Amino acid sequence: MYHPAFVSPRTGRQVKAVVFDTFGTVVDWRTGIARQVDTFAVAHGLALQGLDFADRWRGRYYPSMAKIRSGQRDYVPLDILHLENLIDALRLSGIDPGCLEESGLTKLNRAWEQLPPWEDSVAGLVRLKSGYIVGPLSNGNTALLVNMAKNAGLPWDVVIGLDQLRTYKPDPQAYLGAAHLLRLDPGEVMMAAAHNYDLEAAREAGLATAFIRRPTEHGQHQRTDLTAESDWDISVESIQQLGEVLVPTV
Amino acid sequence: MYHPAFVSPRTGRQVKAVVFDTFGTVVDWRTGIARQVDTFAVAHGLALQGLDFADRWRGRYYPSMAKIRSGQRDYVPLDILHLENLIDALRLSGIDPGCLEESGLTKLNRAWEQLPPWEDSVAGLVRLKSGYIVGPLSNGNTALLVNMAKNAGLPWDVVIGLDQLRTYKPDPQAYLGAAHLLRLDPGEVMMAAAHNYDLEAAREAGLATAFIRRPTEHGQHQRTDLTAESDWDISVESIQQLGEVLVPTV
Repeated sequence: MYHPAFVSPRTGRQVKAVVFDTFGTVVDWRTGIARQVDTFAVAHGLALQGLDFADRWRGRYYPSMAKIRSGQRDYVPLDILHLENLIDALRLSGIDPGCLEESGLTKLNRAWEQLPPWEDSVAGLVRLKSGYIVGPLSNGNTALLVNMAKNAGLPWDVVIGLDQLRTYKPDPQAYLGAAHLLRLDPGEVMMAAAHNYDLEAAREAGLATAFIRRPTEHGQHQRTDLTAESDWDISVESIQQLGEVLVPTV
Repeated sequence: MYHPAFVSPRTGRQVKAVVFDTFGTVVDWRTGIARQVDTFAVAHGLALQGLDFADRWRGRYYPSMAKIRSGQRDYVPLDILHLENLIDALRLSGIDPGCLEESGLTKLNRAWEQLPPWEDSVAGLVRLKSGYIVGPLSNGNTALLVNMAKNAGLPWDVVIGLDQLRTYKPDPQAYLGAAHLLRLDPGEVMMAAAHNYDLEAAREAGLATAFIRRPTEHGQHQRTDLTAESDWDISVESIQQLGEVLVPTV
């Protein structure tokens, strides 16, 4: 079928699937959201600056999931959190979301399905796909991720939206559940992400790890995740490079 | 993104996703299983005839799922039912499965992941993929379906294994759960299958329906599902033809 070449030095297992964080790792959410916010602002005559608003909207991402991870709130898919966070971010920007049509907000919320891939993403995934099962392991829900993939041309073999497991990363069940779904041992699955916290949790759950550096995810003045903060199995500058390491010959 | 063209006359909804039964509809399980059984028989010096054994093995498929659908038994994935059914089928063939190595049986059980697609399947799916979300909606579990797709080159956008919903078709929850996972109304999803019972249940759940005639699924003397037994939305001779109907221009 396919010929996985990589054995994780730490787990000693042959990697058979590579699963990806998406927002920031595979797609450039900040530029993508900013562009669509700018369009929305012009259409509705709002004083919004796309990049600032993207940061504000995304800034509510982790806190909104934390309540679910801690059990304070029942699971709801990321679509719903994104919409709630959009409404909050509008309020914080001095805009009354009640003055905007609900259908317009729902449409803007779909901006998360229309994000541009980093320029190396598609070619890298195509290469990896020749040797491994590739899929997102993202906090996004399945529908969001499937539409994102259709729009961006991401050639996934399988889409693991965390609505399937009703949890959010870095809950260990996200990583273990993904391996279980693929009928693989955790050590046969490699988590690829631009975020050290995600890899830390994946490694803790027994997965192999690959750090993909995305130094401009948060713009030119990014201060987090600029380097691999641990000895991950692999540390690279792009998905293309990950492909070259994991599939040496094509 | 993509431009679905088909509106179901019955549901009045624009179809956005086409989900497929796999065994018999997309892949030729009988020929594929027979070939691997023949190889297994030679390797182990067993008196098994591939096609007969394939029928015997598959013959236990519906009864084994029925116990789970009726609640007599907790959900187990199809991999496990297949293995149990293999052991039963060997016994019925006068072979003591206890005399065979467990690893050999597990390997033979993976035959379900190595089935050849019908000759029109891949081209048809590629065409459909340009206009719709395409995925299997199969009683197979996710791992089985992902490996099958890798082996056969099936270009799915999403893989809906029924381990994700812990049920088996024709339980209405299989169809409704798939639509929910894709964040679509049931009427926006089309079930494509070579089996009238599957389409009956899908239509009952509100899905659009496409019958794909596979008159040799059970060999030259097939007696079931030779014709569309109802006025399904579409009735065609191949997935390629379904592609031509649903994506008129490419």
